[in-house]
Amino acid sequence: MTKKRTVGALLFPGFELLDIFGPLEMLGVLKDHFEVVTLGETTDPIASDQGPRSAIDRSFADCGELDVLLVPGGIGTRTQIGNPALLEFLRAIYPRLEVLASICTGAGLLAGAGLLDGRRATSNKKSFTWASAQGNNVEWVPQARWVEAGNIFTASGVAAGIDMSLALVARLVDEATAVKVAEYTEYEWHRDASWDPFAELAGLL
Amino acid sequence: MTKKRTVGALLFPGFELLDIFGPLEMLGVLKDHFEVVTLGETTDPIASDQGPRSAIDRSFADCGELDVLLVPGGIGTRTQIGNPALLEFLRAIYPRLEVLASICTGAGLLAGAGLLDGRRATSNKKSFTWASAQGNNVEWVPQARWVEAGNIFTASGVAAGIDMSLALVARLVDEATAVKVAEYTEYEWHRDASWDPFAELAGLL
Repeated sequence: MTKKRTVGALLFPGFELLDIFGPLEMLGVLKDHFEVVTLGETTDPIASDQGPRSAIDRSFADCGELDVLLVPGGIGTRTQIGNPALLEFLRAIYPRLEVLASICTGAGLLAGAGLLDGRRATSNKKSFTWASAQGNNVEWVPQARWVEAGNIFTASGVAAGIDMSLALVARLVDEATAVKVAEYTEYEWHRDASWDPFAELAGLL
Repeated sequence: MTKKRTVGALLFPGFELLDIFGPLEMLGVLKDHFEVVTLGETTDPIASDQGPRSAIDRSFADCGELDVLLVPGGIGTRTQIGNPALLEFLRAIYPRLEVLASICTGAGLLAGAGLLDGRRATSNKKSFTWASAQGNNVEWVPQARWVEAGNIFTASGVAAGIDMSLALVARLVDEATAVKVAEYTEYEWHRDASWDPFAELAGLL
């Protein structure tokens, strides 16, 4: 039995629903291993780009100790890239995390905070130009389902976060548990991080 | 351009996160076609089984007109099957809907409300015994990613709801739009409703 970890889900107005709730499902079903909390700049509910609003458990200022932080993408990233409070929160919390992970254009926020400098990373294929423009010193990988670079994981668009989060379960718990979670959720896990037909569809190759 | 439809997401304590947020992503990105609202017995926030809480837009009593209603599963279904307010809401709203759809053990609630009588339906493979026990006059299909029976769709477990919701987009909008949504969300759509390796894994065959 590994120690129980706290997983923070960083939300902001206009976040992409499945970016965050896919991974939170995969980690959240493992209640003996992970506790999930939602984080926002304040504790007011936050509306996703698709409409549904999420309640917020903890504010940035009072987030407590976190082991894993998940950063989704969505159209809201275009505003948040200019929000010093969010970028400063990322910079301040990162040294205390075991793993930092982004989904979709969330990688643009990590890059904007300077956290991807000198690392390999990927992002949403349809918005790759925007995300990759947020960090010039990043080795952006156009074709990858997700990239694991030290303790920072970056996933490609939306559903890719589900595959990445299972890889995270494999790393933090074990591979057999990740396989069980995929079976429990009736999800066909793409276990190969280089599987990415969407790069070509988006004209990146 | 088809008319803009209102999609209600029926939430209850202990709902399964991905059951509902997978489909809400797929429908919610089509803002010209769908508006998404969350529904609860009251408008208090509702906690999922995995932890995160959702804000509620409308109560059952004040739900307004809906075109599509989505009913997730999750451990909370075991309590809700004994909740007359929820079962009565399902019975009262169904005749006014264009499509009713369940994901995972949500099919047990539809069966408990008598709405699946005389129809084909499926449910989560690991909880198939529980769900199918809620309706004796239902033709339960053990191997199916989802089942479309008239205007009632039932999906298998958790991630199967994503595939079903793309089939729903194909029916309500068109096939090309469903393909575009899958590409936009970087999701590998299982377009064959009979694809279901999880039935055998769960020992149902």
